[in-house]
Amino acid sequence: MTDASQDPLVIFTPSGRRGRFASGTPVLTAARALGVDLDSVCGGRGICSRCQIQPAFGAFDKHGVVSEPGALTAWNGVEQRYKDRRGLAEGRRLGCQACITGDVVIDVPPESQVHRQIVRKRAEARSITLDPALRLHFVEVDEPDMHHPSGDLERLRAALAAQWGVEGAEAPLPVLQRLQKVLREGEWKVTVAVHTAHEGAVPRILDLWPGLRERPVWGAAVDLGSTTIACHLADLQTGELGASSGVMNPQIRFGEDLMSRVSYAMMNPGGAAEMTRAARAALRGLMAEVAQQAGAAPEDILEAVIVCNPVMHHLVLGIDPVELGWAPFALATSDAVSLGAAELDLGIHPQGRVQFLPCIAGHVGADAAAVALSESPQTSDDLVLVVDVGTNAEILLGDRTQVLACSSPTGPAFEGAQISSGQRAASGAIERVRIDPVTREPRFRVIGQDMWSDEPGFDGTAVTGICGSGIIEVIAEMRLAGIVDVDGAVGSPDAVGSSRCVPDGRTFAYVLHDATATGGPRVTVTQGDVRAIQLAKAALTAGAQLLMDRRGVEKVDRVVLAGAFGAHISPLHALVLGMIPDCPVAKVTSAGNAAGTGARIALLDRGARAEIAQVVRRIEKIETAVEPKFQAHFVDAMALPNKSMPYPELRKAATLPDLKFETASGGGGGEGRRRRRRG
Amino acid sequence: MTDASQDPLVIFTPSGRRGRFASGTPVLTAARALGVDLDSVCGGRGICSRCQIQPAFGAFDKHGVVSEPGALTAWNGVEQRYKDRRGLAEGRRLGCQACITGDVVIDVPPESQVHRQIVRKRAEARSITLDPALRLHFVEVDEPDMHHPSGDLERLRAALAAQWGVEGAEAPLPVLQRLQKVLREGEWKVTVAVHTAHEGAVPRILDLWPGLRERPVWGAAVDLGSTTIACHLADLQTGELGASSGVMNPQIRFGEDLMSRVSYAMMNPGGAAEMTRAARAALRGLMAEVAQQAGAAPEDILEAVIVCNPVMHHLVLGIDPVELGWAPFALATSDAVSLGAAELDLGIHPQGRVQFLPCIAGHVGADAAAVALSESPQTSDDLVLVVDVGTNAEILLGDRTQVLACSSPTGPAFEGAQISSGQRAASGAIERVRIDPVTREPRFRVIGQDMWSDEPGFDGTAVTGICGSGIIEVIAEMRLAGIVDVDGAVGSPDAVGSSRCVPDGRTFAYVLHDATATGGPRVTVTQGDVRAIQLAKAALTAGAQLLMDRRGVEKVDRVVLAGAFGAHISPLHALVLGMIPDCPVAKVTSAGNAAGTGARIALLDRGARAEIAQVVRRIEKIETAVEPKFQAHFVDAMALPNKSMPYPELRKAATLPDLKFETASGGGGGEGRRRRRRG
Repeated sequence: MTDASQDPLVIFTPSGRRGRFASGTPVLTAARALGVDLDSVCGGRGICSRCQIQPAFGAFDKHGVVSEPGALTAWNGVEQRYKDRRGLAEGRRLGCQACITGDVVIDVPPESQVHRQIVRKRAEARSITLDPALRLHFVEVDEPDMHHPSGDLERLRAALAAQWGVEGAEAPLPVLQRLQKVLREGEWKVTVAVHTAHEGAVPRILDLWPGLRERPVWGAAVDLGSTTIACHLADLQTGELGASSGVMNPQIRFGEDLMSRVSYAMMNPGGAAEMTRAARAALRGLMAEVAQQAGAAPEDILEAVIVCNPVMHHLVLGIDPVELGWAPFALATSDAVSLGAAELDLGIHPQGRVQFLPCIAGHVGADAAAVALSESPQTSDDLVLVVDVGTNAEILLGDRTQVLACSSPTGPAFEGAQISSGQRAASGAIERVRIDPVTREPRFRVIGQDMWSDEPGFDGTAVTGICGSGIIEVIAEMRLAGIVDVDGAVGSPDAVGSSRCVPDGRTFAYVLHDATATGGPRVTVTQGDVRAIQLAKAALTAGAQLLMDRRGVEKVDRVVLAGAFGAHISPLHALVLGMIPDCPVAKVTSAGNAAGTGARIALLDRGARAEIAQVVRRIEKIETAVEPKFQAHFVDAMALPNKSMPYPELRKAATLPDLKFETASGGGGGEGRRRRRRG
Repeated sequence: MTDASQDPLVIFTPSGRRGRFASGTPVLTAARALGVDLDSVCGGRGICSRCQIQPAFGAFDKHGVVSEPGALTAWNGVEQRYKDRRGLAEGRRLGCQACITGDVVIDVPPESQVHRQIVRKRAEARSITLDPALRLHFVEVDEPDMHHPSGDLERLRAALAAQWGVEGAEAPLPVLQRLQKVLREGEWKVTVAVHTAHEGAVPRILDLWPGLRERPVWGAAVDLGSTTIACHLADLQTGELGASSGVMNPQIRFGEDLMSRVSYAMMNPGGAAEMTRAARAALRGLMAEVAQQAGAAPEDILEAVIVCNPVMHHLVLGIDPVELGWAPFALATSDAVSLGAAELDLGIHPQGRVQFLPCIAGHVGADAAAVALSESPQTSDDLVLVVDVGTNAEILLGDRTQVLACSSPTGPAFEGAQISSGQRAASGAIERVRIDPVTREPRFRVIGQDMWSDEPGFDGTAVTGICGSGIIEVIAEMRLAGIVDVDGAVGSPDAVGSSRCVPDGRTFAYVLHDATATGGPRVTVTQGDVRAIQLAKAALTAGAQLLMDRRGVEKVDRVVLAGAFGAHISPLHALVLGMIPDCPVAKVTSAGNAAGTGARIALLDRGARAEIAQVVRRIEKIETAVEPKFQAHFVDAMALPNKSMPYPELRKAATLPDLKFETASGGGGGEGRRRRRRG
């Protein structure tokens, strides 16, 4: 017997774990024995290179060890062959081949860690731990023995259990049908895709390939909005983003907002099924597109996480949304839904899995749950209002003591629809606007050009319209410049003192850009445009107000603007419009597509799925449609910024002219009341 | 506080369980408290009548109690309404409505027990406990509450947990799609079909119906043989048989025996898929037929258990059987396979479940497992040989110490195929034959007529052919009467001394029936027919011999003949042919379709599925195709009864002429060797 205290000492960084191992122990074996997070797909066969490590040599006072160049064995044939064929960065070794022969310090680089953290830029955001439900395992399977007969599947299962600790894996019929051929093609060495929904769940074999699968397996994180559908494709083994894309939701042709789609389903036999087909076709197209972007086939996508509001949730699942059209707004199911991709006809891997995050209430969906996952109000020390701006806005208010949630049907105005010159955020769209408060002359920037419209070289003929963030800025600037008044009325040329205000029927419009002289476009902001934005933002603010009432507060500490175009909204302009409650401008931040991010977190981290199920259960839901105070808040919020709330923080940052034009049309509250009906 | 020792005493029979309950306790409640097996679907609402009980009145010395007519409460409105509308047998009460007010003896009739035993006629057979995977539960679901939002599914789940102890039930998408409509149609009272594969498995909601479902839910037990497919339909709540039917396996057109079908798959691209479609279509047709017989729709069938040999198993599952065509005869999977009926396109309930029993080895299938379940050699005190006669014979030998199994490719001769006048066991088929050993004149009986052919009134024109048991009897009788010799040669008219022996090419045939004079049929037994039976029975006996060799025995204590026509084989005649090893005639019994019975046991009793998985693991498998001694046994077994075995028990019961004709063709052993090849 040798004296184990004389065995070489191994110290792993960054974990700091250490232990003594017999000379000749592979680094991967030592790492596993110490619980060091070192990846491997091939299980130590020197072919997947996921267990790359970096030995550090020298005297390490901190660790009390001297690590000498000879502390690891020389390159063996397997390792050398890997380096020759595939290459290995300077200083790197394969952890499964290099063996310990002396005291050594070994660094595990981030990309070799199984449960590595994916860094997110914003400090307050939840970090992502890579812990996907879908894992690849390379196994060597025993060959059949006539005298001890057992099925190929049973021997594959035994290999998964013995080599990877995956116990009791189940195989669906299509896998069983492929199994024998693949095992023989791979000469009893195969890579198996195993999906384990959560710790303790029955592992499910989704597919297998001969030998070591080198191509990535992909996961799709989908934010299925009323107006737009966004998708991110992530490598399920590394978490790396492979592609992102978005399309318009083709259901728009059945109704621009959710309630008009529910009405369509109620009024037209087969209407719900028609919308289901449309949504699934769009998802299928999007999946094919992101796969192509990533240089993959749709079948390489093995998992998808979908977040959406309850109406989209029911429609895409093929559940008639009729019950969401009237009180008590009963969901068919509120918990997370897990099913096969083939059931939704997504066109991805036929055994692929789809996970819908849980809904919070009849009008507060999995998208709000995803926003909670991304923005984590439930762990915030200060009181945060998270507003996910879209055709249906999801609103969360809370801190670690309590989180409240509601949704508000803002309509598609913020996404550029219902706006006379509105368009998607694409090349040619005006996205930034400034209006001189003295001359009332505008300058702006369009997507696709670096300079402002008043700078030399600007191409005015390339302007095509205004996108969502542009319309918010231009109306806010019009309010600051005295072109629209507190009620949202656009002033006449005389009242404003600018020839850019022009008659438009019985009302007035502001000419933002006119290139008609050179055959170019003319972009105006009409009274109707202002009304559309007023209605949308009043719904948003009224929802936020209800949550603040319930919480018993008159102000919030900070506001997070989220949504497909949330990142592009100027905080100051959002405050000028009164889209959000008053708050110091510096405390208004953008989170980008938080729902999409939440979907991506749930895709990459099984633990997050369990976490969100807990959070959703604790969230307190407010049903705006039946709250009597919603109407009063809505009417007050039609004003710019608000009729009853003074917005002192905003007024520290900007001066709002105290202005009211004489007009025939009034404030538009009645119009708003009509739009509010849900059932 | 009252003195509980003064509470009424209740004694349940036949269990004998007893206890005291407060006056006014419903009988069902008392039964449950005592663990008495009393059924209920509606959960005590007085609408399903499954909890019927029969109070017994009088002085019961045995129980030490006097049970008086007033010991149960008078009929209440619910109970009276049930009796008026549906009727209730004399003396019966509803256990959920009748309450205990005094000492009473209460009998639980068999049909009110949940886990009642289903009586089987033969003492040695395994009894069936009714414990189906599929159960109906009537539940009342909470209505949705906007202020405490939760999905309809989540409230249904909660109701199943609270009212039936069914925890964590899952609902597949089609159930989710129907859910809201059915709950509202039933005014929040629904009957739910819950499938729980085994104790501890996740319960799965297969369907739900508004209110109390009165129609039975059915289960199908299928024995999918190479030549015939048999199906029994059983009421999953009562175990009662609703219908039985059988069809020919349409795969016969691709090859009569299994290996020729495997060859077809190997030689023809798409051939396996073609056979898969044919088998599934036949199953679909059979399901529709048995449903109709039972007055049900195919959608009323919610579960099926299928047993079959490995080749049929793979083909019906859509797995290419090519690996079963050569050593080492690797199965894709050997464990039980559970899947959705829709995956096999069975045309039963779209959420219906299908269970394939486990296979024992590459050539010993789930049908052998089912035979083991039915005939239970593993619990036998004496050494039993179970022979399931079919196109592929399953053979089991064992007792409680050890069970051996093999299969043997007998070909379809026993089922009437390959026989010149062979036909299915249907009206007009000769099934019983006797030949006078002196005159060599035959008499016989046909299916559909009660009298023998030599009795007055027999209609000779109605004879159409010979069925499987008939061909065995006629050849055995020919052997006993000296018409065929020990090698199976049919004698000439001169050698035999009978004009019923006629030339037939270079050989001779025996005229069993000739009605050609009156325009009727002529039924002969040709030399080719005898050869076909010799080949089939030699394969059977050689398989049994291999098992006996392995076990180290020269005789068995008893023989069970099973198979679709096993019940109709005459033990004496089977011994004369040497189909089975020597054994006292009285010790040869028939088990009918044991594989089909095993399927029915597994259908009705979840416990039996677990049990068979255990048994299968313990069974020792012999691969006949590679056993060198198989050939020698086969050649010996070509003789009638056998070349090397003396059959002393047979000779006690019958005299076999020691006869050998001079013929050109010989014994046919070479022919047999050619047929034996498997890969």
